[in-house]
Amino acid sequence: MDGELISVGTEILLGNITNTNATYLSEMCARLGISLYYHTVVGDNAGRLTKTLKQAWARSQVIIITGGLGPTQDDLTKETAAEVLGWKLTQDAHTKKRIENFFKEHLKIQDVKKIPENNWKQAMVPKGAQVIDNHNGTAPGLILEQDGKSMILLPGPPGEMKPMFEEAIYPYLRKRQPEVIYSQMVKICGVGESQVEADIQDLIQKQKNPTIAPYAKTGEVHLRITAKAKDEKEAKKLCKPLVRELKARFGKNIYTTEEKKTLEETVVELLADQNLTLATAESCTGGMVAARIVNVPGASSVLKESFVTYSDRAKRKRLLVKKGTLAKEGAVSSKTAKEMAKGGCFTSGADVCVAITGIAGPDGGSKEKPVGTVFMACCYKGDINVREFHLSGNRSKIREYSTVNALILLRDTLLQNFKKK
Amino acid sequence: MDGELISVGTEILLGNITNTNATYLSEMCARLGISLYYHTVVGDNAGRLTKTLKQAWARSQVIIITGGLGPTQDDLTKETAAEVLGWKLTQDAHTKKRIENFFKEHLKIQDVKKIPENNWKQAMVPKGAQVIDNHNGTAPGLILEQDGKSMILLPGPPGEMKPMFEEAIYPYLRKRQPEVIYSQMVKICGVGESQVEADIQDLIQKQKNPTIAPYAKTGEVHLRITAKAKDEKEAKKLCKPLVRELKARFGKNIYTTEEKKTLEETVVELLADQNLTLATAESCTGGMVAARIVNVPGASSVLKESFVTYSDRAKRKRLLVKKGTLAKEGAVSSKTAKEMAKGGCFTSGADVCVAITGIAGPDGGSKEKPVGTVFMACCYKGDINVREFHLSGNRSKIREYSTVNALILLRDTLLQNFKKK
Repeated sequence: MDGELISVGTEILLGNITNTNATYLSEMCARLGISLYYHTVVGDNAGRLTKTLKQAWARSQVIIITGGLGPTQDDLTKETAAEVLGWKLTQDAHTKKRIENFFKEHLKIQDVKKIPENNWKQAMVPKGAQVIDNHNGTAPGLILEQDGKSMILLPGPPGEMKPMFEEAIYPYLRKRQPEVIYSQMVKICGVGESQVEADIQDLIQKQKNPTIAPYAKTGEVHLRITAKAKDEKEAKKLCKPLVRELKARFGKNIYTTEEKKTLEETVVELLADQNLTLATAESCTGGMVAARIVNVPGASSVLKESFVTYSDRAKRKRLLVKKGTLAKEGAVSSKTAKEMAKGGCFTSGADVCVAITGIAGPDGGSKEKPVGTVFMACCYKGDINVREFHLSGNRSKIREYSTVNALILLRDTLLQNFKKK
Repeated sequence: MDGELISVGTEILLGNITNTNATYLSEMCARLGISLYYHTVVGDNAGRLTKTLKQAWARSQVIIITGGLGPTQDDLTKETAAEVLGWKLTQDAHTKKRIENFFKEHLKIQDVKKIPENNWKQAMVPKGAQVIDNHNGTAPGLILEQDGKSMILLPGPPGEMKPMFEEAIYPYLRKRQPEVIYSQMVKICGVGESQVEADIQDLIQKQKNPTIAPYAKTGEVHLRITAKAKDEKEAKKLCKPLVRELKARFGKNIYTTEEKKTLEETVVELLADQNLTLATAESCTGGMVAARIVNVPGASSVLKESFVTYSDRAKRKRLLVKKGTLAKEGAVSSKTAKEMAKGGCFTSGADVCVAITGIAGPDGGSKEKPVGTVFMACCYKGDINVREFHLSGNRSKIREYSTVNALILLRDTLLQNFKKK
């Protein structure tokens, strides 16, 4: 099935907001096996919106439109879509009631008369459209079917659009697809993006069904394997050999095959499984590793504490780094990283401590230790793993890569230890 | 001048990457006073790309195209653009030399014969085009002028596109604009987005020249004031009364009128100006406040250290929070936040300490203290400011808002003290 996305909103054309709806919907359509050929962004302008909708309707089977469903006069999407298809608007009693309830529950307005008049515009729907309830706002979603094609209208705020898509649109589109689509995620860490691409070049070249699509994230690469078949069982079966092949090629660098699991979650799980507690000792990352760990709900059961020891004094006082080490080797050195990790375990009483010290720039670099030089150490019950990095990019890139690499070092240390036991 | 953006790349249509180029270029065009009416994303497909370019060329004066300039066979943008305008491709000697040098310097390939053959494709340019050097990659940028219109081709990677735009395209477009555009930023913190919008409703309604555009960021609102005039002096003069009016309305909630200054930078500056040192004591933010401070180059001069005290034990040990306070009031309480801030100053020796403790969810909420309850305290030489928040959203939203609000509390405390002196 061919499709396209249309985002309506002058705020996107002005650069006020990034069109993340398009990213989300594109990934969803890829999962559904819908081939998207175009994204278009158009402002809240009747003439240009009409032209855009007509063009899309002429060339695509599924059109997903976001934005322009609000209560103001600027919001034209529903009216324009109805006009393009030649449909009439009519008041939907169910939606009117839902909007009333929404105001009562969420906005504490009990008196219907006090609801701003323009909100009732949102209860007007093209006659014959399928109405999708919005549990997080007032504007309903709409599906308009004609000549075997579908025009799907969704509100612009991601917090309203995404739940509606997941609840109603995804199942609707899935039914419309003649075949079943199944997809499986393989998440890789510790291998560079270009290396992963080179390693799977042959698989990509001969791909057909299933397909394989790489998504580069900071310090990680996610591979999505997608198969089409007559039923889910068949599709899963098609994916299996490819997933097995990837496991053979990337081994322990695959940290999960679960869609929603993050790197920090796998680290927290490894710690919890082994009943271990964690501390972090951070210099150039300044708390970013701890912040990633705290991303995981329930991190409190494993994270003992963290030290951001940006100054030499704090490195000495909190982490017992030796004065001589700082003087002789410098704050950014393998030896300092080691002592930070060891000291972090000792002073917090945690079983494991990961330490990061580096030069994130723009200043502070030297010939021997240029900007991007980062040392990391992970102490596990006295054993210490050390790694040295030479990262490129600006200050924030260097700090982001350092953070991911610290999580990878932690994971590797925990896996090593897991094996020993 | 009317314009539109076209992004070429199947990876955007698959949702592999978000089209942040469009956001950046839209904001730049708004600053230049170019009215963008459409963004289009199209895949690496000759037929669809040709249709898209023809349509854009027929309706817009400036077309900015990103992506599809690389060395592979999939990269079709330059070839298609030349064909649409009826131009021939020719080898550009200067670009060929630049690519050679790029391989020598950046990729350490000294022998020209070892440069992969397909790279020379990038030295082919439409005859008569203005060639823009790429200092961060191989593909050059191109400007094609015809019938008073401009087609601008730029590489897709933001790290190559942005520097080229700033160096060459921005000045080029600026010259093409009959009038001068001047814009001034006003950054506001501590006032909600809808409140700011309500407060400037009258200014937006009567806006003409200058215009005023709000950009909502997490916990902040940025207002861009843009004026058109025959020269910069005149344009600046037009902006002045509006900026003055905004200063009167938002007062000290305006933290800067500088384009690139961040909230954390103003905090670090306030600390440095007063010769003060900082510590942070973080529970639910888990190091995010420290990480924001460390974003600022040179933060080492003010940040003494930070404590992520996620456990009660760490709160007691590091920050001297009293056992009784934790037992009676709970870890998430005004009293605990106060003791954390005070303890943070005492144990680190810093002049100022900001402390954050809250329930970020999804678990841990109760009837009295639901998810989103956050207490913050800022201790300045014994004086303590405390704030209570009831934030909504998911775990990461609550933590992000807490982080910004901690920076705002810090700023307010420092301003208060500044006045006293």
